[in-house]
Amino acid sequence: MDMGRNLFVRREVETAKAYSPGLSVDEIRDLYGLERIIKLASNENPLGASPMARRAVERAAGSIFRYAQSGSPRLAEAIAAMHRVKPECVALGNGSDEVIDLLIRCRAEPGRHNIVTFKPCYSLYALQAGFCGVELRTAPLRKDFSFDWEALLTLVDGMTSLVFVTTPDNPSGYCPPARELEALAGRLPAETLLVLDEAYMDFAAYADGAVDGALADYSLLPRFNELNNVIILRTFSKSYGLAGLRLGYGLMPAALAGYLRRVRLPFSVNTLAEAAGLAVLRDRDFHLASLREVERGRALLSRELTGLGCPVYPSLSNFIMFSPPPGASLSAAGLFDALLRRGVILRRLDSYGLPEFLRVSVGKEEENILFLEHLQELLAAV
Amino acid sequence: MDMGRNLFVRREVETAKAYSPGLSVDEIRDLYGLERIIKLASNENPLGASPMARRAVERAAGSIFRYAQSGSPRLAEAIAAMHRVKPECVALGNGSDEVIDLLIRCRAEPGRHNIVTFKPCYSLYALQAGFCGVELRTAPLRKDFSFDWEALLTLVDGMTSLVFVTTPDNPSGYCPPARELEALAGRLPAETLLVLDEAYMDFAAYADGAVDGALADYSLLPRFNELNNVIILRTFSKSYGLAGLRLGYGLMPAALAGYLRRVRLPFSVNTLAEAAGLAVLRDRDFHLASLREVERGRALLSRELTGLGCPVYPSLSNFIMFSPPPGASLSAAGLFDALLRRGVILRRLDSYGLPEFLRVSVGKEEENILFLEHLQELLAAV
Repeated sequence: MDMGRNLFVRREVETAKAYSPGLSVDEIRDLYGLERIIKLASNENPLGASPMARRAVERAAGSIFRYAQSGSPRLAEAIAAMHRVKPECVALGNGSDEVIDLLIRCRAEPGRHNIVTFKPCYSLYALQAGFCGVELRTAPLRKDFSFDWEALLTLVDGMTSLVFVTTPDNPSGYCPPARELEALAGRLPAETLLVLDEAYMDFAAYADGAVDGALADYSLLPRFNELNNVIILRTFSKSYGLAGLRLGYGLMPAALAGYLRRVRLPFSVNTLAEAAGLAVLRDRDFHLASLREVERGRALLSRELTGLGCPVYPSLSNFIMFSPPPGASLSAAGLFDALLRRGVILRRLDSYGLPEFLRVSVGKEEENILFLEHLQELLAAV
Repeated sequence: MDMGRNLFVRREVETAKAYSPGLSVDEIRDLYGLERIIKLASNENPLGASPMARRAVERAAGSIFRYAQSGSPRLAEAIAAMHRVKPECVALGNGSDEVIDLLIRCRAEPGRHNIVTFKPCYSLYALQAGFCGVELRTAPLRKDFSFDWEALLTLVDGMTSLVFVTTPDNPSGYCPPARELEALAGRLPAETLLVLDEAYMDFAAYADGAVDGALADYSLLPRFNELNNVIILRTFSKSYGLAGLRLGYGLMPAALAGYLRRVRLPFSVNTLAEAAGLAVLRDRDFHLASLREVERGRALLSRELTGLGCPVYPSLSNFIMFSPPPGASLSAAGLFDALLRRGVILRRLDSYGLPEFLRVSVGKEEENILFLEHLQELLAAV
């Protein structure tokens, strides 16, 4: 133990759990000596990077020695214009993860406030609440992974500063109707803010060939300007294909966004993320093609997994949760390992407390088909 | 006030001050309609971006849709090899700013611990201590901006978890000898860690044409493996020219670095920062040329500013602090504004509590000369 005499870290840190990321292509290539890896583990964009974003990055590469303009105002304005909200309501972050962390740090006092969410859900709410020393209260999901609002509301009291709801949800893909969210917002105490993490909303909102064809069915974003206790989180990591660059934002009451901008590390959004973010907002063809590809791939995976006897959960997102066929000799963990040895990376859900399930991200058509072929062989072999 | 009923933010947030960044080229171009802007405000690399880093960014641009391998292990290993420390001792961050924030969050309990530093100093220690609700104690610098260790030690007690010392210092450029730092480390209480922020150390350590020619004179880095209560912070923003990409790190006891890696947001270092970081570590020619350019420019600026009658503080960094000549009719603020209207951006030091001084970053030779010409004209005109 090399800390010698300087052992002290805060209790919240000593007991903190680490985030469990998906395995990377490099790790698996090195581990198994495989040529071809299909990564369907982290809900990345199946079409890769937008050509306009790539060009924007290449163009900006000569300016990486300059600090950004603090707060990235041009990007905040572009986002505000797209959503028809005031630019003052936009708080950018180094991924929406940073916005989640800042919301907790700004609004939740350890030993006084609490945070309420469902369990299982995206792990970062719990991890950051724990790191901040703030009480986390979790309501169980229903057996079918839909949301039990009454169970959630039972946990909420006057000291609840934030309620986090992921919609569509991760890892199940379940997406509640917007009217239920509105009813929830209406029933919260005066000081409680409802945080709707819409990391995957673009996939639910895509309908009839239009980017936001079904947005009002699932999201409160069209009504953001009327609601004063709702925060909406969005990310460029999924439908916009910028996961590696780290870019996310929250739409929230202007005064709160102002506080976040003030306490955020001054240059947390890097200049290439800003340049690429501005580019992908203009690259509508790529965005639309990404959403179309996900809709097609999701239908294929859902149909074929069901055909192979796997219980599949209905998803409005860019991933599908499933389990091995009942009675199969391979457990979820066994199936995960067997696929990994064949170069197909899925996501185990142990860290969600769901070891009996796996999550597969929707990939390119050929990736989806290869995954299904491997799966079929594995299930037939035993 | 649109927060309506949801006004609550934590007291530490309500009273938080924002970081004061240097003005950006775009801001000034727009404001004054100028063609040519010389930015000498943010201590960026005068030679710009390393060609190898640019190429690395361009090559990696197609992979921005992928998440990084969490913890960026390849980069941590390259840094460890360069400094001859164990990779487990390296904690990377989204700029060294994130490492500063994490150190405070991990080691300082509000209402119990305190943090000690000099005043003035780099503002982020105080900003993050304030945001975290942790007591900050500051010892004044001596009149000549050198470090009064006795004054610092007077403030340290058994509840001091971190002592921050910037070396070379910002904004003065003062750099204490390594033996004084070693003596300080030896006098700290058992649980106190000494954090040496070496953001600018490369400029002090460059001597006789060698990158680290004088390192042992100023830094405890060569003795890091023997010292168990010293943390060293480094950044890729200055001598490596990657300010916009956000990349920094701390060298610290392995157990503490492990905690930081665990509580850090999982993908806080973006993939292009990692790619560019690996590239600049290999681009020794660029690094050496940057250090040489700064040494030359610093000597020129120091000599000419002195020749113009400006009090100049001796700097071992890539910037110089000075004030207008005694008796000049232009105040520091007036001089700053007059230069700005001519397209030369310096840094006002009001946010450091030093309104009578200005800071000029060492630029390219032509930028330094243009700045000096404008200054000479302005001082002669009044």
